[in-house]
Amino acid sequence: MLVDQHCHGVLADDLDEAEFGALITESDSPPVAGSSPVDSALGLAVRRWCPPVFGLPALAGPAAYLAARRAAGGAGATRRLLAAAGLAHLLVDTGLTGAAGRPLLPPVELAALAGAEVHTVVRLEHVAGGVTAEPHAWPEAVDEALATACAGAVAVKSVLAYRAGLAVPPGPPSRAEVVRAAGDTGAGGPGTDRLTHPVLLRHLLWTAVGLGLPIQLHTGFGDPDLRLAEADPALLVDFVRAVEPSGVPLVLLHGYPYHRQAAWLAQAFPHVYADVGLTLSYTGPRAAAVLGEVLELAPFGKVLFSTDAYGLPELFLVGAAQFRHALGRLLASWQADGACGAADARRIGELLSSGNARRLYGI
Amino acid sequence: MLVDQHCHGVLADDLDEAEFGALITESDSPPVAGSSPVDSALGLAVRRWCPPVFGLPALAGPAAYLAARRAAGGAGATRRLLAAAGLAHLLVDTGLTGAAGRPLLPPVELAALAGAEVHTVVRLEHVAGGVTAEPHAWPEAVDEALATACAGAVAVKSVLAYRAGLAVPPGPPSRAEVVRAAGDTGAGGPGTDRLTHPVLLRHLLWTAVGLGLPIQLHTGFGDPDLRLAEADPALLVDFVRAVEPSGVPLVLLHGYPYHRQAAWLAQAFPHVYADVGLTLSYTGPRAAAVLGEVLELAPFGKVLFSTDAYGLPELFLVGAAQFRHALGRLLASWQADGACGAADARRIGELLSSGNARRLYGI
Amino acid sequence: MLVDQHCHGVLADDLDEAEFGALITESDSPPVAGSSPVDSALGLAVRRWCPPVFGLPALAGPAAYLAARRAAGGAGATRRLLAAAGLAHLLVDTGLTGAAGRPLLPPVELAALAGAEVHTVVRLEHVAGGVTAEPHAWPEAVDEALATACAGAVAVKSVLAYRAGLAVPPGPPSRAEVVRAAGDTGAGGPGTDRLTHPVLLRHLLWTAVGLGLPIQLHTGFGDPDLRLAEADPALLVDFVRAVEPSGVPLVLLHGYPYHRQAAWLAQAFPHVYADVGLTLSYTGPRAAAVLGEVLELAPFGKVLFSTDAYGLPELFLVGAAQFRHALGRLLASWQADGACGAADARRIGELLSSGNARRLYGI
Repeated sequence: MLVDQHCHGVLADDLDEAEFGALITESDSPPVAGSSPVDSALGLAVRRWCPPVFGLPALAGPAAYLAARRAAGGAGATRRLLAAAGLAHLLVDTGLTGAAGRPLLPPVELAALAGAEVHTVVRLEHVAGGVTAEPHAWPEAVDEALATACAGAVAVKSVLAYRAGLAVPPGPPSRAEVVRAAGDTGAGGPGTDRLTHPVLLRHLLWTAVGLGLPIQLHTGFGDPDLRLAEADPALLVDFVRAVEPSGVPLVLLHGYPYHRQAAWLAQAFPHVYADVGLTLSYTGPRAAAVLGEVLELAPFGKVLFSTDAYGLPELFLVGAAQFRHALGRLLASWQADGACGAADARRIGELLSSGNARRLYGI
Repeated sequence: MLVDQHCHGVLADDLDEAEFGALITESDSPPVAGSSPVDSALGLAVRRWCPPVFGLPALAGPAAYLAARRAAGGAGATRRLLAAAGLAHLLVDTGLTGAAGRPLLPPVELAALAGAEVHTVVRLEHVAGGVTAEPHAWPEAVDEALATACAGAVAVKSVLAYRAGLAVPPGPPSRAEVVRAAGDTGAGGPGTDRLTHPVLLRHLLWTAVGLGLPIQLHTGFGDPDLRLAEADPALLVDFVRAVEPSGVPLVLLHGYPYHRQAAWLAQAFPHVYADVGLTLSYTGPRAAAVLGEVLELAPFGKVLFSTDAYGLPELFLVGAAQFRHALGRLLASWQADGACGAADARRIGELLSSGNARRLYGI
Repeated sequence: MLVDQHCHGVLADDLDEAEFGALITESDSPPVAGSSPVDSALGLAVRRWCPPVFGLPALAGPAAYLAARRAAGGAGATRRLLAAAGLAHLLVDTGLTGAAGRPLLPPVELAALAGAEVHTVVRLEHVAGGVTAEPHAWPEAVDEALATACAGAVAVKSVLAYRAGLAVPPGPPSRAEVVRAAGDTGAGGPGTDRLTHPVLLRHLLWTAVGLGLPIQLHTGFGDPDLRLAEADPALLVDFVRAVEPSGVPLVLLHGYPYHRQAAWLAQAFPHVYADVGLTLSYTGPRAAAVLGEVLELAPFGKVLFSTDAYGLPELFLVGAAQFRHALGRLLASWQADGACGAADARRIGELLSSGNARRLYGI
């Protein structure tokens, strides 16, 4: 059984073809004419692993699949997909509350459907975005809101990469700087929909360091809202060094196509971990090669599995199946080459599947 | 039959060993002592695919090959090499007119030798470099020259990566900025051999957006004239977003070693396409792995084949053969792994070989 | 027999488990709880190649290995490990003099134990750091110290990547700039432990160009002291162009994860070479794939083997064995695919193993 160290809620509804297609891409646009949403590496992975859950052959087409899914009903389909994923623990980022214009299933209902234990990951920017306070009181109001939100949580999450990029100055901003920034009436300030002020975002990170929970950071690819080059985890190096004395773990999510840089950070710094979640789902048939690239430098005790599933329950199964298949192929090829033994392969597999996450999050 | 969505003219002449060697590298220097121009991945690919056209075994040495080529005569050799490439359509960038000090074959003669339909790709900087006008009249003069040059063309091409790097501000420069830049008497202005002024280059791009034709952009590796890090397509993201509302397609040529970044852009944005041309030729025995990397994120409906052949007719055959071989190997490995079916593989192959290009360029 | 074109001295002592573990990582921290220093790709490679030297099976565990190593004695173990590496020439960077708080074996004793010929590589920053002179006399004092140190040396080495990053202006600083920088009393000036002033470091490089020896530059990954993104060899392009007229060879060490960028520089510029040393050791079971990536663009006449061994004699054997195994696997796969013939494979192997280094360093 796997520990899914980073995921989101799902829709347990019936979905039509357009909704389904929209949920299996990081893009916010339909595919080009003459093409379909499953014409991608991720699409192949969905078609490979999901149809058998409903009695269809692997790689069945989207129409047959959606018909079988509908026949199972939204909740039934979700339950079957989640059960097939074989997940013991889910660490759910509660900062996203809807998808495709509908509310996501609350974590407790997700837990029930999945038959898994659910833990909370608090999204820093989501909590801070809900804080209304005068500028001079903003730092304390945010700190209090975060402390409250983090009661019982196992980790926090930052989407700094989307909001301001990862090239942040190393240390925390001064209180005076934060208050000044909180009074900034331009875009990205506290009164706006979307907190993007770099000083405020940095304050959140250092408040999180003070809370002591592991910090999950989005790095690498994501939706079109991102400036990819600014999501290179190598840009975090000064922040990583500044956090090191605190011992607070930093978990670099996704990383791709900068996953080798993330792996170097995990090798060089004792408190840095590398996640392979979203990457193995999206790269489909290539997942074993990409996982291999992560393991070139990342210590085996520092690599974490996740699905980063969001919206579609299929993505839990796909994430888990891709990870198991890629890991199995990779380790089999290493053994065939004489590079590791069967006991080594079992041990590596156990660390990545659950051991590292259990140790890191204390679950 | 393939659609070669980006290529150049060739020399249909007899070539001596030095000329031949100089044309099979992006370098402008001879190889190190004790080495030869075919001591490279591209060199292996040339030796693999071309000798059989002249009745020699694959991997025959350069001396035997050049003797057989000479015996066939320049025009005869060119015809045989092009025929072996199996190309139905050639999209020719007409911005380069010579190689190794000799004029390239005009497109119409290339078409005749290749037995293929030829279409024109207009190089923006080449057209603009030929415009002489007073600064205040430069914008309109360039716009008119481009409109004229693009009559009957299927795409335009930009070498911005070489001239100013891809990190351009998102929007078009104002007319006043362009006029001011056109009056700049320093290097890179309108009166000089080589237009490099960033404002003028940006004006060309936005004029092209106005024309509505797909814009091919050089990204990634090239000759020594390039600052590689500035050719990372990820740097284009703001420009990509600014162009999105127009719907004008952007085709990221080459990309390597930033092809995964190009693939992300193609996945995230509806109007972005990724080309695998030059890359599969140059990486020789590694082409299947590199193509696999592109297909990790790029939707199968967004990936385009080209040869980027220039000067040597061999490069048409090598580009086509490398693409077919790499694609065949990659898809066979996916099928062997259970990641896709035979019908899926045929469909993916058809999209990349010609379907995507036919749809994009309306041919 | 291989030419190891970049390595360091070793400790020929008995080592306990903690010392051994500390020497097989670029990190300066112990592994996470529940993990061990050999839980990494490099750890697997050490366990694969070293135990058989002491009569143990490949992949034996650390405890059994260390016991067998101790039984052989420090000097005896070192001799056996070095002999098993099969190295004809060692180019030793003499800028590091200790490891784990003990002095490294002097080059002449290393030569005796290895049964190899030893050549000196002078570390620029190490020599310059020992120079004490008034600011106005600093340039000449450094130039003289370097000229003296380089008598009999075959190359120099720069750790600019660690000290100031590789994005240096192209040309040499003026004498006035150097004198001014030498008078800078802040951190990184001549009177300090660690020379980091960019102007002074640049002066060293250009002094080295004047000496005419090949310049080895650290690029890519290394210990936690590094800002990885600043070690991308692509950032050197302006310096590379400025050095080109001198003909002085530039050897890009390591490169990973920017080894494809290093390979492009080696392809584009006649005086640039790419090293695969440290990378093939650290990437363990993935070494053949990574070597393949280097050979995508790098001409076969420009790629160099090294071990970058430091401290542990095991790292000489691991570097050599990893290189031989990776090269063998890669070339076998190329032959199986029809991409090269047996004679081609032998020739490529000979160039990378020793031919390129013999030609470049005149040994």
